[in-house]
Amino acid sequence: MAKDIKRLDPNAKIYGVDNDPQHLDEALALGLIDIKSDYDELHLANIVIASIPVDVMLTELPIILDAVNDDCLVIDAGSTKFALCKSLTDHPKRRNFLACHPIAGTEFSGPSAAIERLYEGKTNIICEVEKTAFKLQEIALELFRKMGMRIRYMNPEAHDKHIAYVSHLSHISSFMLGKTVIEKEKNERDIFDMAGSGFESTVRLAKSSPAMWTPIFQQNKENVIETLEEYIENLQDFKKLLLNEDYEGIYNEMNNTNKIKGILKGIPLNK
Amino acid sequence: MAKDIKRLDPNAKIYGVDNDPQHLDEALALGLIDIKSDYDELHLANIVIASIPVDVMLTELPIILDAVNDDCLVIDAGSTKFALCKSLTDHPKRRNFLACHPIAGTEFSGPSAAIERLYEGKTNIICEVEKTAFKLQEIALELFRKMGMRIRYMNPEAHDKHIAYVSHLSHISSFMLGKTVIEKEKNERDIFDMAGSGFESTVRLAKSSPAMWTPIFQQNKENVIETLEEYIENLQDFKKLLLNEDYEGIYNEMNNTNKIKGILKGIPLNK
Repeated sequence: MAKDIKRLDPNAKIYGVDNDPQHLDEALALGLIDIKSDYDELHLANIVIASIPVDVMLTELPIILDAVNDDCLVIDAGSTKFALCKSLTDHPKRRNFLACHPIAGTEFSGPSAAIERLYEGKTNIICEVEKTAFKLQEIALELFRKMGMRIRYMNPEAHDKHIAYVSHLSHISSFMLGKTVIEKEKNERDIFDMAGSGFESTVRLAKSSPAMWTPIFQQNKENVIETLEEYIENLQDFKKLLLNEDYEGIYNEMNNTNKIKGILKGIPLNK
Repeated sequence: MAKDIKRLDPNAKIYGVDNDPQHLDEALALGLIDIKSDYDELHLANIVIASIPVDVMLTELPIILDAVNDDCLVIDAGSTKFALCKSLTDHPKRRNFLACHPIAGTEFSGPSAAIERLYEGKTNIICEVEKTAFKLQEIALELFRKMGMRIRYMNPEAHDKHIAYVSHLSHISSFMLGKTVIEKEKNERDIFDMAGSGFESTVRLAKSSPAMWTPIFQQNKENVIETLEEYIENLQDFKKLLLNEDYEGIYNEMNNTNKIKGILKGIPLNK
């Protein structure tokens, strides 16, 4: 986002705040930020973008809101929305906050993982838009529009339920697939020499940051367990078809799922 | 392969044989083949590349071997090797055949899915190399070298066991992930609007051809069931950690699997 903001407004002055001093140095060296800063300067900000793990988001956002000036827009970019929106309900500066989930990114983290124009054609879910001051909504939407985002409005419960299927479950499936093959590899040396792009595609997300994903699974526990149970059941059914040598059934399972081709056509790819 | 052969040897004359007349017309129009042909002309061939589903491979390869001349090299490109190698053990022209599995390709099928230079840096598993006439091995290896393939030699049992982990399981995980989300979508309209590149990556293989994959699962049934059981067990363990709110355990699971980063570095990407 910092990259895009600098591109869209060369006069923008970007203050970076990070727990990790190395990341701040890196962000400065990469030109992502102009100034290394801290919470003491939050009152100067026009816009604050909070991009931190969703557990610390719950503790940090109230502090950030307390510190900013009355005209400052605060947005987040976390993968869960229910716990955060709930925790901020009664905050005196709730109207300064816009709850966002831009659905974009890669399995990589840190300043060097930033990608310019990442958001072009990507969906940004906004929750509880009516709770944000109208003037600040306008500022946010103008920025998102310039970045090329498609906006969808949703309530936090629906967001967390849906995103469990199309994002959180994919990460678990990927991590456990990686684990299954790594466990095997202890005894079978040649296995990774045989891995092709299909394997790479299905385990790509297993490179994701545990520090980012543990609190996501924690906050969305109930929805994630539901998706996981349905997924395990489908895998068990597939195994049963194999055990019963029901190859017509296996063909039909795959054929029915092939319609994902049409569905995926609408998803912009970005690795 | 036809694309690469034409590039490497502009004088090569490529005869196309296909059950589906539309595919033959398409291949001709795309310049993949020079002549639409059939088994009656097999005796003219220097090299035959059999690229058909692995079940019909078992019935067609003996017929092809019967028809070719004594100096013809016949190679296959199937994802299973044990059943095929076993079925050809006593064929009088066994020495004309080289059992191959070039690990490359995409989820798409048909002539229009062909990709030039697909094999650059990709692994090609060769099984039972000692059963192929030395002169024909040389011809095959020279061709593979020019295409940029890395060659690995393996016995058919080991091939089928390993490939179940790094390819066949990925396809099942992808198909069942797609199914889980499609089932949900019946009631939840907005779900695919929220899908990003992470979801796309994990379900990409669910676009694969059921006609190609059903016989692969059939021929490699026992190995595939073993991998599927280990995968389901790992998913169930992950679910248990979530149910027990053991977030340290979840963090460790993901952290341990992160080492896939280093492992995947060696895999050439090709979508």
